[in-house]
Amino acid sequence: MHAPVELADIAADILARVRTRAPRVHCITNSVAQQFTANVLLAAGAVPSMTISPEEIGWFVAGSDALLVNLGTFDTERRAAIDAAIGAAKAGRKPWVLDPVFVERAPPRAQFARDILTLGPAIVRLNAAEFATLSGDDPAGDALARFAKTHATVVAVTGGVDRITDGTRHVVISNGDPLMGLVTAIGCAGSALVAAALAVEGDSFIAASATLTAFGVAGEVAARDVGGPGSFAAAIVDAIYGLDRATLRQRARVS
Amino acid sequence: MHAPVELADIAADILARVRTRAPRVHCITNSVAQQFTANVLLAAGAVPSMTISPEEIGWFVAGSDALLVNLGTFDTERRAAIDAAIGAAKAGRKPWVLDPVFVERAPPRAQFARDILTLGPAIVRLNAAEFATLSGDDPAGDALARFAKTHATVVAVTGGVDRITDGTRHVVISNGDPLMGLVTAIGCAGSALVAAALAVEGDSFIAASATLTAFGVAGEVAARDVGGPGSFAAAIVDAIYGLDRATLRQRARVS
Amino acid sequence: MHAPVELADIAADILARVRTRAPRVHCITNSVAQQFTANVLLAAGAVPSMTISPEEIGWFVAGSDALLVNLGTFDTERRAAIDAAIGAAKAGRKPWVLDPVFVERAPPRAQFARDILTLGPAIVRLNAAEFATLSGDDPAGDALARFAKTHATVVAVTGGVDRITDGTRHVVISNGDPLMGLVTAIGCAGSALVAAALAVEGDSFIAASATLTAFGVAGEVAARDVGGPGSFAAAIVDAIYGLDRATLRQRARVS
Repeated sequence: MHAPVELADIAADILARVRTRAPRVHCITNSVAQQFTANVLLAAGAVPSMTISPEEIGWFVAGSDALLVNLGTFDTERRAAIDAAIGAAKAGRKPWVLDPVFVERAPPRAQFARDILTLGPAIVRLNAAEFATLSGDDPAGDALARFAKTHATVVAVTGGVDRITDGTRHVVISNGDPLMGLVTAIGCAGSALVAAALAVEGDSFIAASATLTAFGVAGEVAARDVGGPGSFAAAIVDAIYGLDRATLRQRARVS
Repeated sequence: MHAPVELADIAADILARVRTRAPRVHCITNSVAQQFTANVLLAAGAVPSMTISPEEIGWFVAGSDALLVNLGTFDTERRAAIDAAIGAAKAGRKPWVLDPVFVERAPPRAQFARDILTLGPAIVRLNAAEFATLSGDDPAGDALARFAKTHATVVAVTGGVDRITDGTRHVVISNGDPLMGLVTAIGCAGSALVAAALAVEGDSFIAASATLTAFGVAGEVAARDVGGPGSFAAAIVDAIYGLDRATLRQRARVS
Repeated sequence: MHAPVELADIAADILARVRTRAPRVHCITNSVAQQFTANVLLAAGAVPSMTISPEEIGWFVAGSDALLVNLGTFDTERRAAIDAAIGAAKAGRKPWVLDPVFVERAPPRAQFARDILTLGPAIVRLNAAEFATLSGDDPAGDALARFAKTHATVVAVTGGVDRITDGTRHVVISNGDPLMGLVTAIGCAGSALVAAALAVEGDSFIAASATLTAFGVAGEVAARDVGGPGSFAAAIVDAIYGLDRATLRQRARVS
């Protein structure tokens, strides 16, 4: 659907808008992911906030430009926070991203994810096991398109390659590095970046595709000169901070 | 009020006392900031603890030398913990620092901050937006002095420059690096360092001024040779660990 | 009991099994330690999960190969989670490790630790102050063996040297680096690695001894070329990722 250079340019444009506008992204995310997610958002130029307090979250979401709902370390207060936050996002017409972490591990979490899927996420980002749990299908082309159409959303299944569709348009991204799989919360941080992109790009399919391309390219840049996943986790934050159009054009592998 | 070399020497003295005495600093801080704050305190020679359990926190504060109260990710249990912790600090005559994170984003949080301002924090560290929310004023000289006198505290507004006053004495610190604004919890960690200093220095104005000078200098040292905010976050911890009197004297920019 | 080369080889074998089998380790651990612990487990080849939600934790533990119970930042929900998690571990015959962080700081926490000591942890990893609180003794040879026999467990007291016993077999490990004491959650992460080893090694004494040797060696490798505890925290993750048999044989100091 997109030539690599085209999507690379769109990614560079979106990144430039994030850096200029500094969108506020409220993140309900798991406690393992909070610090890394905040640092990835700051490196990209966005402004993260992360409270889950029921009496505050409506204010925070109302003052934000996009919302991330991540189901990791899903305790009682987070569940209540999610309901309030999605309500505030709908009231304020803010786009939100769903990241249904580890739904394959606990049926109550999968059920909760299915419930909030009906509340209109702009984008669902997840891995193959999570997709299989929610859809009952392998993440192949037809099943992805069906999922996107059924839920009227954009679905992005990430892993060795990333597959993204809104049911009509499709893209496969082959960027990234295996070290990304060895840093906790890397997928969660990718979802947060997608939420930041949504704050400056109204086409959810474009926002997801461009951002995940940029994130994969940043992972490749970071992997060039590190000793392992510990230094890689810092290097990918640096790479997001420094990512430029030339690097995106040179490295984007999209079909 | 202080010549740079004078405050640099005081900072070096305070740092030496922290390294020798290893004060215990109990931190009620947001879940995004906990790891980085603990690592900054350890690098400086202090011993952090972070429980918010209502049945434990009184014991932890009683066994500590100073307390940090940070209002980020301010959930129900943290609110209860704060009341108990401040009570224990008052009972044990332990100094405490208030860091009213993001009070401009949610009126209930701002109200809570105003309430605990009456409980006698030794130092309030915050940024310009947070100061404006709590005081109704821009953080200029007169408003700062008025705030400090009204609340009988030391106020430190940090940002591009740091302005600190106890209502009578004033200092402006021009150290630091823009990368500090791209690392989550950097301000929170600065407040924790100030609490560690309070454990070894009875003059709160001196403790705040010297520590924020040292923190800014550490940021400059860290920024010299990094690729972005990811590597900077590790480098500033290293810089705090290695900070010496000569570097403080050479770099302190105080007026 | 073991020649250094023998234990080094066992450590290399266990590490190889973790890398091949990718055991799932569910961690109830404090919020300060979660990110670093997850990254250490991923670097070793294990798969961490960390929810504390009461309605989910039984599922997560049932689907895991080992459990870590760490008492840091011990709030109300964590306490309930621990009971449920240990119940699920017993029901599924999963081994679990107890890390009774900071029990010397709050009597209610020490009492809770004593209570769950009766529930059959395979290994208890703690420092000297924590051991003294739970046992009433200094962590010398006889007291350690008595503790291990009384609680029918393996006890590992870590610090400048690590002392491990099951009441009959004893080992003293002299690996490690002082920088390990300046990284928050380093002990917590070591306990998590021990839990990963338990998932692939049925002899708890061997699992604890081999893993703590490997962890100490990784600390030494990491310390060779860093500027302080900030870069060291990343470097030890890299070192665990890259640890090989030759390095273990060359550096293990065990008696």
